[in-house]
Amino acid sequence: MKVPFAVLASGSGTNMQALLDHEDHGAAYRIELLIVDRPCAAEERARVKGRAVYRVDFGCQSVGDEVVGLLDRHGVRGVLLAGFLKLLPPEVCRAYGGAILNIHPALLPAFGGKGMYGHHVHEAVLRSGATMSGPTIHFVNERYDEGRILAQWPVPVEPDDTAHSLAERVLEVEHLLYPAAADALARALGREEPAPTFRWPGTGIPAGQDLKESIESAFGGAVE
Amino acid sequence: MKVPFAVLASGSGTNMQALLDHEDHGAAYRIELLIVDRPCAAEERARVKGRAVYRVDFGCQSVGDEVVGLLDRHGVRGVLLAGFLKLLPPEVCRAYGGAILNIHPALLPAFGGKGMYGHHVHEAVLRSGATMSGPTIHFVNERYDEGRILAQWPVPVEPDDTAHSLAERVLEVEHLLYPAAADALARALGREEPAPTFRWPGTGIPAGQDLKESIESAFGGAVE
Repeated sequence: MKVPFAVLASGSGTNMQALLDHEDHGAAYRIELLIVDRPCAAEERARVKGRAVYRVDFGCQSVGDEVVGLLDRHGVRGVLLAGFLKLLPPEVCRAYGGAILNIHPALLPAFGGKGMYGHHVHEAVLRSGATMSGPTIHFVNERYDEGRILAQWPVPVEPDDTAHSLAERVLEVEHLLYPAAADALARALGREEPAPTFRWPGTGIPAGQDLKESIESAFGGAVE
Repeated sequence: MKVPFAVLASGSGTNMQALLDHEDHGAAYRIELLIVDRPCAAEERARVKGRAVYRVDFGCQSVGDEVVGLLDRHGVRGVLLAGFLKLLPPEVCRAYGGAILNIHPALLPAFGGKGMYGHHVHEAVLRSGATMSGPTIHFVNERYDEGRILAQWPVPVEPDDTAHSLAERVLEVEHLLYPAAADALARALGREEPAPTFRWPGTGIPAGQDLKESIESAFGGAVE
């Protein structure tokens, strides 16, 4: 018995697509419905898979009760935000607290907050000179990007990166990290266990090198 | 001919020690003097190596000119902050702009700013749930931790970490990353080249695994 999940999206829905695709590979969840706040490509992706799609007016006062009603009607246990650009109504946060995940394309708490979505995030990373980025999966509360972090994965920023090239590199990891996180959450919910944990298993060191030589080889621009 | 550098410190001076030790392994810089703002263990470390040590009152109005005077007297070309807790006087920033580095024990721009030093940084990392941390080397300007980032290196946060255990893991990387960054800066200054560049050479993936399996193995707490 799969754990019923909902996705909320506002855009192209590529992260939702990765979540849907993962269902065919033994995921512990099933996405029962998609809720969108505007016409978007995610709707068609969900329909192709035969899932319920609801377009909801998030400017409406009763939106919180309306969304909770839809989630309850489908027996939803967990909520996944996938490129959803509105704040989640407090009624939804209260009803599903601890079972709502979001994905952000940078290492929170850096490069988060209001207005930080899509290319704005990657442009801010490049402006800062940060030499690492990568996706963050976090629990959602009533403020933007401030819920507890569940998982992060490091991605190098290349010296000649554009926002586009960096976004592509981070997205490749997003499409693996989000399904794995959703799966871990579904398993935990299915057994009424506490939230899943995560440990980045890497070392930062390329295979066959030690830390010292890999650090020394990382600096360029003034090499002999 | 080694490029003359100065270190500013306020504490135990372990990063300065790593910088001094690296001189014996072909570093392009030589630390000519240490400036401190208070009695601290760093002073003795510098004296053991026969370096000039100056204790300066950073509460004094003329401190900027005094520090620039000391740096000029020793022919300094670059300045390295190593656990120095005061703001650098604007006169020093103007005189040495682009040739002043600092090290921070987390991935800036997260976990930086006023009051964020030592164990405060690691405690904030643990509170956030961040699953990665690691040192940042950045250029220094007149505000705390806001200069352009030169280099970062990822370090895993373990689920059972304390501020102490996380600090130790980050410190091990700091003691290799800072000498390598100082060396890259010295080489660039020695040749009047632009600032050095940095590219993290890792992939985040443990040796012998692919991205998908390493991500899936990273989630725990609800495993079958």
